[in-house]
Amino acid sequence: MSTIKRLQPETRLSGAVIHHGLVYLAGQVADDATRDTEGQTADILRQIDALLEEAGTDKSRLLTAQIFITDITEIADMNRAWDAWMDPANKPARATIEAKLANPDWKVEITAICAL
Amino acid sequence: MSTIKRLQPETRLSGAVIHHGLVYLAGQVADDATRDTEGQTADILRQIDALLEEAGTDKSRLLTAQIFITDITEIADMNRAWDAWMDPANKPARATIEAKLANPDWKVEITAICAL
Amino acid sequence: MSTIKRLQPETRLSGAVIHHGLVYLAGQVADDATRDTEGQTADILRQIDALLEEAGTDKSRLLTAQIFITDITEIADMNRAWDAWMDPANKPARATIEAKLANPDWKVEITAICAL
Repeated sequence: MSTIKRLQPETRLSGAVIHHGLVYLAGQVADDATRDTEGQTADILRQIDALLEEAGTDKSRLLTAQIFITDITEIADMNRAWDAWMDPANKPARATIEAKLANPDWKVEITAICAL
Repeated sequence: MSTIKRLQPETRLSGAVIHHGLVYLAGQVADDATRDTEGQTADILRQIDALLEEAGTDKSRLLTAQIFITDITEIADMNRAWDAWMDPANKPARATIEAKLANPDWKVEITAICAL
Repeated sequence: MSTIKRLQPETRLSGAVIHHGLVYLAGQVADDATRDTEGQTADILRQIDALLEEAGTDKSRLLTAQIFITDITEIADMNRAWDAWMDPANKPARATIEAKLANPDWKVEITAICAL
């Protein structure tokens, strides 16, 4: 049976789950929820970098990402942080939709699948 | 070419699709849509158990789940059913967002990827 | 290290990413955003066919799809295009939720994972 490794356990989820050469990330939200959409996105992307590093990979091997934003009219603000972060030689598939999130102060949540 | 097995066919989707050691679940909704958020979640999780069993696996090998809830302010109700169900030693990655669903009586929909 | 191939690069994402026997599609939207929900869905599904063909596969090997629709009450219109398109012998897992999208004229966005 294939091995499953779980990173950064929280109360009711794992921050990341590694299986068969892939890392599945839980939806990441900003540690500092007082920041604006661009700031929260940058905060989230730093956390994703840390999770991927702990898993033994990095953003150059990102396969797909899903971005949830509470106000889709602020997508340009999210994208500024995204553009500053993403590896232009290795862009993942991506989908972005508007959705309310568990904490009303969260403006962005990002989930992703990355190859080891 | 790798084999694909499809379980529980419905009109326009399969309830689960098995490929290369993974089970992809369709969005599961409550059979009894008159129940409240906690009751619908428990109903859904029972259906997920049945799908995983039919696929030859179980919730201890869940990799990631996405939860859609029509009223995010009821997330604690959904989480009560989740906490009673999930395997605390094997928590999946998870993302929860608010979204309206196909049937206005549905309060929760859950999709997941699980390892065989 | 496993190979990753990226198709149809756009400014900040790849239209599809191929890794380890799977194709991950970016959220696809209609080229012609003036069309109605059924027309946009048909437009998207044609684009998905083209992406899958470029990746070396086709809709008969679709594993899972996620459909975002800006007005869930128009799900029957989306489903008409879906039913005309999908392979009835090879239905993917599927989840459909309501969500606002990046361009207010877009009525549907579809993302999917397909086996090679």
